[in-house]
Amino acid sequence: MKRLSHLAYFTRLLVLALALSGLVQASVQAQESKTQATKKSKVVFQVSDGDSKKWELTLSNVKNVIKDLGKDNVDVEVVAYGPGIDMFKFESPVAGRIEEVLKLGAQVMICENTMRAQKLSKSDMLDNLGYVEAGVSQLIKRQQQGYAYIRP
Amino acid sequence: MKRLSHLAYFTRLLVLALALSGLVQASVQAQESKTQATKKSKVVFQVSDGDSKKWELTLSNVKNVIKDLGKDNVDVEVVAYGPGIDMFKFESPVAGRIEEVLKLGAQVMICENTMRAQKLSKSDMLDNLGYVEAGVSQLIKRQQQGYAYIRP
Amino acid sequence: MKRLSHLAYFTRLLVLALALSGLVQASVQAQESKTQATKKSKVVFQVSDGDSKKWELTLSNVKNVIKDLGKDNVDVEVVAYGPGIDMFKFESPVAGRIEEVLKLGAQVMICENTMRAQKLSKSDMLDNLGYVEAGVSQLIKRQQQGYAYIRP
Repeated sequence: MKRLSHLAYFTRLLVLALALSGLVQASVQAQESKTQATKKSKVVFQVSDGDSKKWELTLSNVKNVIKDLGKDNVDVEVVAYGPGIDMFKFESPVAGRIEEVLKLGAQVMICENTMRAQKLSKSDMLDNLGYVEAGVSQLIKRQQQGYAYIRP
Repeated sequence: MKRLSHLAYFTRLLVLALALSGLVQASVQAQESKTQATKKSKVVFQVSDGDSKKWELTLSNVKNVIKDLGKDNVDVEVVAYGPGIDMFKFESPVAGRIEEVLKLGAQVMICENTMRAQKLSKSDMLDNLGYVEAGVSQLIKRQQQGYAYIRP
Repeated sequence: MKRLSHLAYFTRLLVLALALSGLVQASVQAQESKTQATKKSKVVFQVSDGDSKKWELTLSNVKNVIKDLGKDNVDVEVVAYGPGIDMFKFESPVAGRIEEVLKLGAQVMICENTMRAQKLSKSDMLDNLGYVEAGVSQLIKRQQQGYAYIRP
């Protein structure tokens, strides 16, 4: 077997070093692009006021965001709790407009803590809503997941 | 001393390469889990309205979050400024409920800019509160530290 | 050419390993400090209420933040939409104070969706304002860029 020269070994080490250095770069870049990817537009709207003008404004906001960014480029969630829950009751004055934004792909999450406090059941509420144990915890969770927060 | 064969050297380089590649993975994962760790639930509530219904709602929110996520899994801070500072005055109508959430581990921070503007001293305020120069700066700082922001 | 001893090769591998491990550390630290750098103070204020007391509070907030953190250490932007747009109309009761915060370096962005809905043109508005298609989209974008969000 032919003995490798000094130089040949050194070359091999260098190639290895460059390969590993490439691996490091790739790993770091992969992580960066992962961070970028989680920055796809995501937004959570809080409805906690029992004020129908705020509800109208929130619905306009949701529509404008979806129109402006494009339905496929943004995840929109509305979280209702406290006095804001009235917006999504069966007899809501904005029921028609809510149906419209649900069709545009927005999600609505209702706080079950508030429902219990107000002795409401799901049959008192509009259709096609989601439910969470605590509205505020949902707002925290969404922000931790990179959602922007808007309180109209 | 016995000369190492071609193959033996190559094997060594490979072992080294794998070890270093493991080190890279470990470093990147360590950083990821550090990022995860900073995502332990943290939330800052803003009280800037002079509206006792908002104060009640904020206190319910704080209690629900601590109950829902568990006292040891969430850091809760309430920052009061502007008209919201009245919530924490000595004669506050919600003093008893404030004491309750302080016992649950929530922190309260009062804006000293607002106190100066209203000619208030700490003796005008409830016990066991914290103080910051500017409430808004504290809200910015907390968000930069990864706190979710809730404005009830 | 002199053959390298067993020990000499091992030493070389070790030096290489340490060098690469240093490279890994450096890459990871570079990324961390980059993350730090993006944490320079940045804050976006939302004005969406047609309430002049809120406008006064917002202007005080902006001034306090700039005073507290230093003009060069914070980027401040105010986004006005919905009923909040009245704050920046030509006849605004807080026009003088707005001019003051603009001089301190704060930026103001007005929602053009709202302007169209209210049939307003730029000549109806104060000078030195910026304009965006949708105020809410701007608030989302800023939060994605690491701005803290304050809704006074």
